[in-house]
Amino acid sequence: METQSEYPAVVLVSGGMDSLTCLALAFERYSTNLLPLHLNYGQKTQEREFLAFKNICDFYKIPKNQRKVIDMTFLKEIGGSSLTDDAIEVSNFKSQKEIPTSYVPFRNTIILSLAVSLAEVKKCQEIYIGAVYEDSSGYPDCRPQYYEDFNRLIKSGTILQNLKVVTPLLRLSKKEIVAKALELKAPLEFSWSCYQSSDLACGVCDSCALRLKGFQQLGVKDPIPYKVSPDYRSI
Amino acid sequence: METQSEYPAVVLVSGGMDSLTCLALAFERYSTNLLPLHLNYGQKTQEREFLAFKNICDFYKIPKNQRKVIDMTFLKEIGGSSLTDDAIEVSNFKSQKEIPTSYVPFRNTIILSLAVSLAEVKKCQEIYIGAVYEDSSGYPDCRPQYYEDFNRLIKSGTILQNLKVVTPLLRLSKKEIVAKALELKAPLEFSWSCYQSSDLACGVCDSCALRLKGFQQLGVKDPIPYKVSPDYRSI
Repeated sequence: METQSEYPAVVLVSGGMDSLTCLALAFERYSTNLLPLHLNYGQKTQEREFLAFKNICDFYKIPKNQRKVIDMTFLKEIGGSSLTDDAIEVSNFKSQKEIPTSYVPFRNTIILSLAVSLAEVKKCQEIYIGAVYEDSSGYPDCRPQYYEDFNRLIKSGTILQNLKVVTPLLRLSKKEIVAKALELKAPLEFSWSCYQSSDLACGVCDSCALRLKGFQQLGVKDPIPYKVSPDYRSI
Repeated sequence: METQSEYPAVVLVSGGMDSLTCLALAFERYSTNLLPLHLNYGQKTQEREFLAFKNICDFYKIPKNQRKVIDMTFLKEIGGSSLTDDAIEVSNFKSQKEIPTSYVPFRNTIILSLAVSLAEVKKCQEIYIGAVYEDSSGYPDCRPQYYEDFNRLIKSGTILQNLKVVTPLLRLSKKEIVAKALELKAPLEFSWSCYQSSDLACGVCDSCALRLKGFQQLGVKDPIPYKVSPDYRSI
């Protein structure tokens, strides 16, 4: 008989609002018996996001030896994204139909496969990821079909057959995510979503636009500071 | 209309006999218009494998700017495998039914997702991987079903819908792979398969055992030197 894992779940925590809410949900279920996993991939706001990760883990009192940080700066060598390639500018928000310059091809698969590897070594049963479909930026790896296919791949590619990726935010709007975070008393003030700057959030990149839309539609003020806050209620 | 890629294929080249044969097949089709991709993941024979990669690329006259090397030493942080964790010993060959200590959970998915990311940025159509099913060491990510599922995941998780992983060796035995390599005049003397040592191949790890079996069954001498060469013809 297999030993029950000490840590039932790996939780991917970029430090943004969505991953914070995802961690809050996992915490509600498993308390501190979690393995939060943070990835640096040479993105422009890497240090700010790491600080968010640290503050969030501190808030939930996750012991330091359970926090995992993996360096993926090699993604810079692949290039092709404004997040990791200095030659490409981060685009301002235009439309949810258009793939923004921040798209890192197949990034979620790289991240999830690292999480699966860790989960298999630690005998976890679940991997939490805060992927959002409706209000995503049109990234193909945020589609529900993608997660179904990924879970099928886990079954064919691992020894542990009971491991799966869970996506509690997939069908929520940004407004519903803000509401969920507030309901769970998640420390939104510690999260960081901006792709472009690390002191004041820019308010105009795709990630800021979608986050602000959620707060504005709910009629609640975002606790983090912005350079500008255009009205995104109708995007 | 989309521009045709300059490089139709990414080829995963660890430096072992299988990936060499795979590169030889890709070369036969696309000549030097290839992107060979090599991954360091902190394995014990990392430097020796990199030398094999370099010698093989030189043999095929692949320009230096087309060769990609990605450092994945972070896999050490995940642990759980004798290949990357010094606390775990590389097991000697026992049986093809048993998962050896060299198993890195979900490793092929991590590697393939990096290859997909590169292929999408460079607009390639194919990713060659020298995975072998019959004579694999029982790794779950060498099963044909796994590759079918991975190709489904590419369709749901990328923008380029015509990209796919090809596995020309999947149904071949090690004997057939040696025969194919000889037929294609692939430089077997430059390849390195041993998981354990870098001067003389040990002859007893899983990888040496399977390689030697191929040569022995074909009745051909392996051009690389071994410490010992037990008889593996009937494994």
